[in-house]
Amino acid sequence: MRPVPSGVVLALDAGGSTTRALVLDPAGHPLGRAASGPGNPSAVGVEAALVSVREAVSQALAGAGAAVADVRSTVLASAGSDRLVPRETLIGHLGLDPGAPFRRVSDLLAMFHSAADTDTGAALVAGTGSVAARVRGGGLERVVGGNGWLLGDAGAGFWIGREVARAVTDDLDGTGAVTALTPALLAEFGLSDDRRPREGRAFVLGEIVDLVHAAEPVRLARLAPACFTAAAAGDSVATAIVAAAQEELAVLVRAVEGPGPLVVGGGVWRRSAQGPLAPGLRAALTGRTVLPAEDGLLGAASLALRALGLPTAPLRALRGTGRPA
Amino acid sequence: MRPVPSGVVLALDAGGSTTRALVLDPAGHPLGRAASGPGNPSAVGVEAALVSVREAVSQALAGAGAAVADVRSTVLASAGSDRLVPRETLIGHLGLDPGAPFRRVSDLLAMFHSAADTDTGAALVAGTGSVAARVRGGGLERVVGGNGWLLGDAGAGFWIGREVARAVTDDLDGTGAVTALTPALLAEFGLSDDRRPREGRAFVLGEIVDLVHAAEPVRLARLAPACFTAAAAGDSVATAIVAAAQEELAVLVRAVEGPGPLVVGGGVWRRSAQGPLAPGLRAALTGRTVLPAEDGLLGAASLALRALGLPTAPLRALRGTGRPA
Repeated sequence: MRPVPSGVVLALDAGGSTTRALVLDPAGHPLGRAASGPGNPSAVGVEAALVSVREAVSQALAGAGAAVADVRSTVLASAGSDRLVPRETLIGHLGLDPGAPFRRVSDLLAMFHSAADTDTGAALVAGTGSVAARVRGGGLERVVGGNGWLLGDAGAGFWIGREVARAVTDDLDGTGAVTALTPALLAEFGLSDDRRPREGRAFVLGEIVDLVHAAEPVRLARLAPACFTAAAAGDSVATAIVAAAQEELAVLVRAVEGPGPLVVGGGVWRRSAQGPLAPGLRAALTGRTVLPAEDGLLGAASLALRALGLPTAPLRALRGTGRPA
Repeated sequence: MRPVPSGVVLALDAGGSTTRALVLDPAGHPLGRAASGPGNPSAVGVEAALVSVREAVSQALAGAGAAVADVRSTVLASAGSDRLVPRETLIGHLGLDPGAPFRRVSDLLAMFHSAADTDTGAALVAGTGSVAARVRGGGLERVVGGNGWLLGDAGAGFWIGREVARAVTDDLDGTGAVTALTPALLAEFGLSDDRRPREGRAFVLGEIVDLVHAAEPVRLARLAPACFTAAAAGDSVATAIVAAAQEELAVLVRAVEGPGPLVVGGGVWRRSAQGPLAPGLRAALTGRTVLPAEDGLLGAASLALRALGLPTAPLRALRGTGRPA
């Protein structure tokens, strides 16, 4: 056995809404944790992302009573941002030892390792977007979905929110069924239910269309929780949207079938798993070992320890205890 | 009978890509025509729209050998722009006599009157977007669709283009069928077909996703013609998209059923009408009098003549002769 090194290891999960940092001792025990703002350059730009990452690192190290010079190994998990920030820029920006192992991995791969103890299996994330991957030999063998809100991400938060808004416009112009999603959307948008005709359509319908097109499209994802709530209360339009979303997720699950566990995560996944699953998704999951993961932080920690040849078993105790930050 | 007035009448169709102007004598005979750039304020902004409208008016009047002081009646057709430019601003900007009749009408209503000789019926436009209306008593009784690219406009150019891009990403990541739309899209985007794996997916797939999300979403409409071409050549994926688009248009047609003719227009409609119609659309059109219209210019002319109590019969001779500009 190699001697256990001194110092600490650093795990980072830089997401589109939150950046998480975890500092561990070489035996895999957590010493410090922190969270900051968005750390994904493609979501908020390079400058803002670097600020978030540095803030999380500083706070987690402070909590651990450690300095940046003590970091022996770093793994940063993020989605598709590797083209935007050169590795050397990140290392320099954080003040890390250029000679210590530093690895960037996809957020999918990190999430897989957050819950799985093998190098073979699959992962599915359904949050604002949706994406799945087959993992083999510790790398991404095949990625499906995740093509962004305009083309892909079917069955995830933006997709559900857009279906909600469409169902409401169909309700208001009479081409679709009456649904509880309409009052829910009006409440979310702060609009009163004024259906007096104006140039051949309900006044409030024009207001909704204007508001939706004036905002960032991906903001429609905020309507997804109302859809799950309305479905749970028995609204048939909302129930159909949730079922259609799960059938879309089933396509991703089937596309990454194979040996090993399926690690699942993301807010839409968690919300879906609370209710009855649609037949296609239930069938796609049959016979598979499904392991839930909160995010990629524990996986990044596991990979950071492995980069030094250190055991990762102590991390298992941290699983399923909620987000470690 | 009233005496025939001197002077001219002015018809305008201010669209998202082209503004058309037509100057007629009081007997309804065309004297001058012109076309200029985008005249819809919600598409290009108020300033640019006003410039286009004034340019088309000046050129059409010059062609007619008339001055702006000769205009006795004006009708301007445009889509949903009435909130952006006050009527008085337009009249002042064009230098029109404030005492002469000036009316703004929806582009749908103008298109209806371009082809129909009654005040009752329906209209369907399928261009970049899709919208339908029932016309009654010369006004819009009910409008369906037309909720913009993000929520609505199903079955029209943007919608088809997005389905094309989705089909291509599904082809490239293996979740969908192989389709001739893939080489067509790569040619349109100027990309080479590099499918070497990069982080678990084909390299060119990442390039497509980046390009699509970097451009204005509505630009996807430029992929629609390739879909009709591939469908005509027998590609099953393209054929399914065209059929699905027509079923969406059938929903709009059914929503505006009733007495009177159905006036139809828009590039996607014209292209669709060249091939076999999907069963749902064929059924929705059965028993209805379908009248094609190029745009709203002749309808605006008809309404401008009617505002002075003048007959509109001479306009019929201008129908179906291609765009009068």
